[in-house]
Amino acid sequence: MKHVAEMTREELLQLRGDLEKQYEEFKAQGLKLDMSRGKPAAAQLDLTNGLFSALDDYHTESGLDARNYGVLDGIPEAKKLFSDLLDIPAEKIIVGGSSSLNLMYDALTRLMLFGTQGEKPWKDVKGIKWLCPSPGYDRHFAVTEDMGIEMIPVPMRADGPDMDVVEKLVAEDDTIKGMWCVPLHSNPLGACCCDETVERLASMKTAAKDFRIFWDNAYGVHHIYEEVPLKDIFKAAAACGNEDRILSFFSTSKITFPGAGIAILASSISNIAEIKKHMTVQTIGHDKLNQLRHVKYFKNADGIRAHMKKLGEALKPKFDMVLNTLEEELGGTGLASWVRPKGGYFVALDTLPSCAKKTVALAKEAGVTMTGAGATWPYGKDPKDSNIRIAPTFPTLEELDKAIHLFCLCVKLAGVEKALEEKNA
Amino acid sequence: MKHVAEMTREELLQLRGDLEKQYEEFKAQGLKLDMSRGKPAAAQLDLTNGLFSALDDYHTESGLDARNYGVLDGIPEAKKLFSDLLDIPAEKIIVGGSSSLNLMYDALTRLMLFGTQGEKPWKDVKGIKWLCPSPGYDRHFAVTEDMGIEMIPVPMRADGPDMDVVEKLVAEDDTIKGMWCVPLHSNPLGACCCDETVERLASMKTAAKDFRIFWDNAYGVHHIYEEVPLKDIFKAAAACGNEDRILSFFSTSKITFPGAGIAILASSISNIAEIKKHMTVQTIGHDKLNQLRHVKYFKNADGIRAHMKKLGEALKPKFDMVLNTLEEELGGTGLASWVRPKGGYFVALDTLPSCAKKTVALAKEAGVTMTGAGATWPYGKDPKDSNIRIAPTFPTLEELDKAIHLFCLCVKLAGVEKALEEKNA
Repeated sequence: MKHVAEMTREELLQLRGDLEKQYEEFKAQGLKLDMSRGKPAAAQLDLTNGLFSALDDYHTESGLDARNYGVLDGIPEAKKLFSDLLDIPAEKIIVGGSSSLNLMYDALTRLMLFGTQGEKPWKDVKGIKWLCPSPGYDRHFAVTEDMGIEMIPVPMRADGPDMDVVEKLVAEDDTIKGMWCVPLHSNPLGACCCDETVERLASMKTAAKDFRIFWDNAYGVHHIYEEVPLKDIFKAAAACGNEDRILSFFSTSKITFPGAGIAILASSISNIAEIKKHMTVQTIGHDKLNQLRHVKYFKNADGIRAHMKKLGEALKPKFDMVLNTLEEELGGTGLASWVRPKGGYFVALDTLPSCAKKTVALAKEAGVTMTGAGATWPYGKDPKDSNIRIAPTFPTLEELDKAIHLFCLCVKLAGVEKALEEKNA
Repeated sequence: MKHVAEMTREELLQLRGDLEKQYEEFKAQGLKLDMSRGKPAAAQLDLTNGLFSALDDYHTESGLDARNYGVLDGIPEAKKLFSDLLDIPAEKIIVGGSSSLNLMYDALTRLMLFGTQGEKPWKDVKGIKWLCPSPGYDRHFAVTEDMGIEMIPVPMRADGPDMDVVEKLVAEDDTIKGMWCVPLHSNPLGACCCDETVERLASMKTAAKDFRIFWDNAYGVHHIYEEVPLKDIFKAAAACGNEDRILSFFSTSKITFPGAGIAILASSISNIAEIKKHMTVQTIGHDKLNQLRHVKYFKNADGIRAHMKKLGEALKPKFDMVLNTLEEELGGTGLASWVRPKGGYFVALDTLPSCAKKTVALAKEAGVTMTGAGATWPYGKDPKDSNIRIAPTFPTLEELDKAIHLFCLCVKLAGVEKALEEKNA
């Protein structure tokens, strides 16, 4: 189809009629498809079924009985595995339970209740705020919202958060205590922080002494089209004396099993000591057998890397299908824009302003569940009502084919309607 | 030996000389034994090694893929397992991760940050306090201490907390927000709450509307000598409109593997809904594969009960050895008192006043590590310096034989010293 800006009212009316007919045909199929959550497909999970039989012995390398109590911060070989994979010294790593979200939530809880590095507990500071690069991850926003922290959206760009905006805000306001950041293949944009962004995040002046970046490297090894390097934010921060600023998170949720993987937290030696002081009260230790299971299955960081190659190959056809269909159906129409991700789990699409909710509702009505419009913004409020997250991993290729075509149709329907309104206005 | 009260100064001096000689002989053996923590022995853990191969399928009964994301509060069959075992309706149960301590810590964290049932968050209430039946569990006390809650010891008796003291305190002071209680085979006394204690805890008038009992039923099915019944505190509390008062905890840490078991939290429907509202922000779900593994291994509540019988039989020789040795060595001496537990994991001994620290130090010097004296009291401060926790499960029988004999010797040495001081005074 032509670009909407170039279409006459009559052409738009004609097009709307055609689209409505196609939409009714889709509805008649009685689809029931879900592109709402970043869940791996069963076929992806099958790739690590070897985990079920990986535990041939329950002793760690040092002879410790992993069935029993003990070892708060993870068995040494699990620390080493992630240390090698992420190039973070083992002594800066805590291996936790199965959920990195849980590690983030608990980290924020500790900051609220106890503060950090001698600063006032955040519960005792009035009106604290948090920067939320948006579009971003709804579960991140839910954590800060749960704590009653005021969230300030800042623009997310293809190379990371808009640093001009970030630097200005954090320099001026000492109640801004931190920010979320997914540095690689971000959810949902697929943005990757460039070296300059990392440098600026690490070195920027913050009015709050206890400003913290929650660096959720959830997709740190989840490359599909291209292996994107990530500058070491710990080293960059250490170089300016800001190493305590960084709390980094990672998990195998999208490497092995989301329901039963392992998660890690990494930070400065000083922060790790502080965290362990409370964590040792919270628990005697996390599931060491699952840690050992993962170590025995992957053997080493190269084992994970080799697996991620396979996973990338398994995901590529799905991303190809989404990106090709978007291009075929929406390219040049002026109805949508999107960025081609290089990895990760999502494609984010911007409709015309005020069309995202409508688009998602249309898809829902025809049997395709998308992530709720607005979910990629703090408080679920997308100021332009335009961003929609597409999660292509869970459906089969055949399902995805149907779902993404229907989705494009809905983008068009909502967009043409909008264009017609504007012609009428 | 005779009762110390009946001994002359000369007899005591003579005895001290003999004991010191025996002590030096022990020291010369270069022992290195640990009776400090309530850890199961490897042979106990071996009893559930079937868990390693129990997971023949990763689908739940309803067909859900347990490898993937989802199910915040536990797979239905895991809820049913604990519901049947503990006679608590499944809808009042949340199946968590591997640590019940973690569930307790997080429960208290939520009360601090968010409050409960519309009452003020506890972080905003000045000077809140907590009742700690003592002797009690050091890790419980560490949790309330970490939150900055003032701990008030109340006497623990063979049939539970001293309810006259408890009722008076909670009725008068609305800053007393809760209490710890291990209702069966308590750590370390082996106390079991009788029906009347349960009734009074459930029905007592509390000045704080949001008073909470953390009911840590850690040894709920851990009978050794006798199956002790426990009155249903939920039903008793519901009968007086106090059901929200109870937060109950349980885990398989001392049933299967402490490092990799499963833990549960049970409470009123209304509390569970409130907890899930925050928990759903904290995590997408706990390790469902481990839940499924436990269900497939035990099959049903009777499977757990049958296993606990075996476990009780495995522990009985150790408890026999401790209790018989205490009787043989210390019975009638006036140097120590203890209660014979009917189950659980510990024996608690009271030395003469001001002798616990000395006794533990003597044992340590001769190579036997006991739980630190004072650990069974809030802030590690035993006002009489007399209570010592004996944890007989971890050592082998041979090790335990040596360790408990040495321990008795140290109790005598410290006690005779004390008796001599008093004769001199």
